[in-house]
Amino acid sequence: MLTISDVNEFSYEQFVDTFKNIIEKCPIAAGSIYEDRPFRSVSCLQASVRGFLKDLPYNAKIGLIRCNHDLVGKLATAGLLSKESTLEHRAAGLESLSTEEKAMMDKLNSKYKAKFGFPFVICSRKNDVSTILNGMEARLERDKDSEIATTLAEIENICWLRLSDIVKD
Amino acid sequence: MLTISDVNEFSYEQFVDTFKNIIEKCPIAAGSIYEDRPFRSVSCLQASVRGFLKDLPYNAKIGLIRCNHDLVGKLATAGLLSKESTLEHRAAGLESLSTEEKAMMDKLNSKYKAKFGFPFVICSRKNDVSTILNGMEARLERDKDSEIATTLAEIENICWLRLSDIVKD
Repeated sequence: MLTISDVNEFSYEQFVDTFKNIIEKCPIAAGSIYEDRPFRSVSCLQASVRGFLKDLPYNAKIGLIRCNHDLVGKLATAGLLSKESTLEHRAAGLESLSTEEKAMMDKLNSKYKAKFGFPFVICSRKNDVSTILNGMEARLERDKDSEIATTLAEIENICWLRLSDIVKD
Repeated sequence: MLTISDVNEFSYEQFVDTFKNIIEKCPIAAGSIYEDRPFRSVSCLQASVRGFLKDLPYNAKIGLIRCNHDLVGKLATAGLLSKESTLEHRAAGLESLSTEEKAMMDKLNSKYKAKFGFPFVICSRKNDVSTILNGMEARLERDKDSEIATTLAEIENICWLRLSDIVKD
């Protein structure tokens, strides 16, 4: 576990290498927030990530969401998720779905992607199989802009937990 | 080799998977420009990438530059470059530097990173060892904002060549 002082002494290369996946497959977030050093606390790091997300153009926000994988999708089945995603899947019990739950999740993933053009994203570590399936059904009813906002909030939640695994005040 | 019609029929997942590294370690570029479909030509795809880069906030532009590796640096020596970068290194003759050239490149890389806080980026396939070393020396004399602009232009050149390896009109 790093302290905020350790982080403030990092070169950009150490910083990007350490935080490259706090947002899934988006190392430019780490490269960008490095510009905001020094950080007084982990909250300041969070604020910097929030600023990065907020300032992205609309299409880039959607692009960032599209770099997330399906929950319990092909990559998960093939063992090709990022290290962080694998642990998050496990935490939510997504590695041991019943046949019915897996079929339901596949169906809802497909419907969601067909409607919005990006994957369903939720902070697994704050949920379980039941709240995730209910969340998928509820969010399928919403409009695209609401879903973009909700998804970015979920990405922030995922990011805070990933950050808290790496650095503390 | 894909045609522009093939590309226009892709799902966002196929699109991101195909174009995920046209900008080094920046799959959100692919996810973002997917929003601009359908593309009439490869030039339109290029214009879309150019728009993505241009619209990024200042810090995110620097963050994107920081996701590039050093030329002939540790990753290259360890065989850990992306597939695309490996071919580009080879094309510029960077795999067979003399001891003196390697020492010079290491020294200039370090000076450049210390001055600007991001790596020296150049389109290897349009250069050779001599023009790269000369370019490093010349660009070391410039200011940060000029270098950001030049680097983004080089990233576009790299991107056009990577695109031209994947899709044609």
